Amino acid sequence: MYKKISIIGAGGWGTALALLLAENRTAVRLWAHNPEVTKELVSQRTNEDYLPGVRLPPNVYATGNLADTLDADLMLLVPPSKALREVCGKLAGLGLPKEAVIVSCTKGLEHDTGKLMSEIIEEILPENPVAVLSGPNHAEEVAQRIPAAGVLGSKSPELLEPLQRVFSLPTFRAYTSDDVMGIQLGGALKNIFAIGAGVSDGFNMGDNAKAGLVTRALAEMMRLGIAMGGRRETFFGLSGVGDLMVTCFSRHSRNRKVGERLGRGESPAQIQESMQMVAEGIPTALSAWQVAQKLGIEAPITYEIYSVLYENKPPHEAMWGLLGRPPKPESDRDHRQG
Amino acid sequence: MYKKISIIGAGGWGTALALLLAENRTAVRLWAHNPEVTKELVSQRTNEDYLPGVRLPPNVYATGNLADTLDADLMLLVPPSKALREVCGKLAGLGLPKEAVIVSCTKGLEHDTGKLMSEIIEEILPENPVAVLSGPNHAEEVAQRIPAAGVLGSKSPELLEPLQRVFSLPTFRAYTSDDVMGIQLGGALKNIFAIGAGVSDGFNMGDNAKAGLVTRALAEMMRLGIAMGGRRETFFGLSGVGDLMVTCFSRHSRNRKVGERLGRGESPAQIQESMQMVAEGIPTALSAWQVAQKLGIEAPITYEIYSVLYENKPPHEAMWGLLGRPPKPESDRDHRQG
Repeated sequence: MYKKISIIGAGGWGTALALLLAENRTAVRLWAHNPEVTKELVSQRTNEDYLPGVRLPPNVYATGNLADTLDADLMLLVPPSKALREVCGKLAGLGLPKEAVIVSCTKGLEHDTGKLMSEIIEEILPENPVAVLSGPNHAEEVAQRIPAAGVLGSKSPELLEPLQRVFSLPTFRAYTSDDVMGIQLGGALKNIFAIGAGVSDGFNMGDNAKAGLVTRALAEMMRLGIAMGGRRETFFGLSGVGDLMVTCFSRHSRNRKVGERLGRGESPAQIQESMQMVAEGIPTALSAWQVAQKLGIEAPITYEIYSVLYENKPPHEAMWGLLGRPPKPESDRDHRQG
Repeated sequence: MYKKISIIGAGGWGTALALLLAENRTAVRLWAHNPEVTKELVSQRTNEDYLPGVRLPPNVYATGNLADTLDADLMLLVPPSKALREVCGKLAGLGLPKEAVIVSCTKGLEHDTGKLMSEIIEEILPENPVAVLSGPNHAEEVAQRIPAAGVLGSKSPELLEPLQRVFSLPTFRAYTSDDVMGIQLGGALKNIFAIGAGVSDGFNMGDNAKAGLVTRALAEMMRLGIAMGGRRETFFGLSGVGDLMVTCFSRHSRNRKVGERLGRGESPAQIQESMQMVAEGIPTALSAWQVAQKLGIEAPITYEIYSVLYENKPPHEAMWGLLGRPPKPESDRDHRQG
């Protein structure tokens, strides 16, 4: 069992993971990038902006100094996706021991490279064992000890059993998979589709239309995800359809809320300025659209979300693309189901 | 194009279909079983108990006399599943012309026989052409002209194009499929899983746990559905995962509400007594559990719902089966994902 755990990133999910893993009575270090957050974590033992209503237990040690986190046998990386490369570079520069097992808990695709989080880690810290955690896990519920399950993935099977033990808690259940690409791709791509589901909510399109949209999103997730290296069956599991559903239907989802605000008429710039936390679907829509074009994958939902976010397409024009309907309903473009 | 349409059954969905198809300016006859409902439909042009807030347009003719419906080139059957056999027998007895195309719009499995609605129709009215309509379609939203899509299925491909034209309306989009069994099985089985999702809601288990439950439900729907004659890919479409999602997550779903009330402590008898409309998941849970045993299919969620409804199993005991967790979380029963 791992005895010293460091968590890099004190957003909602990083903080919830600290509370969860602290239940094992292990020493947990929680590193925050933002000095204000560090101060609040240290002095008040709370993180009101990112995970309101929780209190850090005594065995969680909060710090703003990355060097404090190096003495760990298990290191969870939970920064925003666009900060992961920089964080890994700093850990490498500080001399992170190569025995430390790294688990990426961030969902996203790197801008321009289209790389997954595990690929960035392997590039910068090539000697450390790497695993990932994905699945339908809203931080708010995990922090409140409402039961949840996630999927741990690694190409090294010997890593999975000890990790599964760390993540097996009364209110959390960890499954394992060797499809590291597939489970990360489900987690990254669903954030784009959640923005689409939110746009549909913003226009009060109802549950029937949303079910149609999410069904098409699952098919698009699979086309993209398989082309990018995931296995088909993974997308039918917790980290695929499971995470897609919760993100598209849950009131907690930040990405769904971004779409809802777009549908109600706010601009992408307005929304981003007002948000404390990163909605990963925003950068992922750009990265995924770049990848779809490069690989020649049909990705109409990703395209519409990309166009609304980056090309000023009015959301009401994107609706037809999201709902899979041509402007003239009588001329069916596609007679097949789904 | 069909010129005379009869709709048998004036519940919420039958009434919504009458409103929808009346948009084609076709004559639509709507038959109600319940004399009170007929009286209200005829005199007030409303159906407050089953579809509040709507008004029948002038080209919908409501009747309580089944003989009035026989002069039709298209007949939609929308009774509760347990009444379908009787209704078909009456139509046969009254001499329904064998040219009338029949579309089953009821979702369910027959008690004891495990037969699908299309199989019952083919048994009793063997000369009539038969199709089915399924998909994520809450009557309330369809009646309010909130966009929706459904799937028309038939073994006779020549039937599908004219039917698709009738069902192609500004706010409704019809896809087609030749997997008549698959699209009906998705529609029938999802009602069982919606009760399960409702139980989870009744216990305030949160969105993360529900996503896990619905992910496992999709896998169970596929195991059962494929064994019963559906095609694998159909369950990934609108009539499978699409309908499953909307029924498990929508506030409109009757079956989800049944589960929620079970989770909050009401007995199955109390709930059924207080319900005006049939929750199809209740009879379907019994039929599907009979079929699962006969075919030797692993169906733990169906079993738990069956046990709560028919064997007085306390819902809190069923929760562990629904969430896929053994009573002792530390001893993982199954290390694989999903």
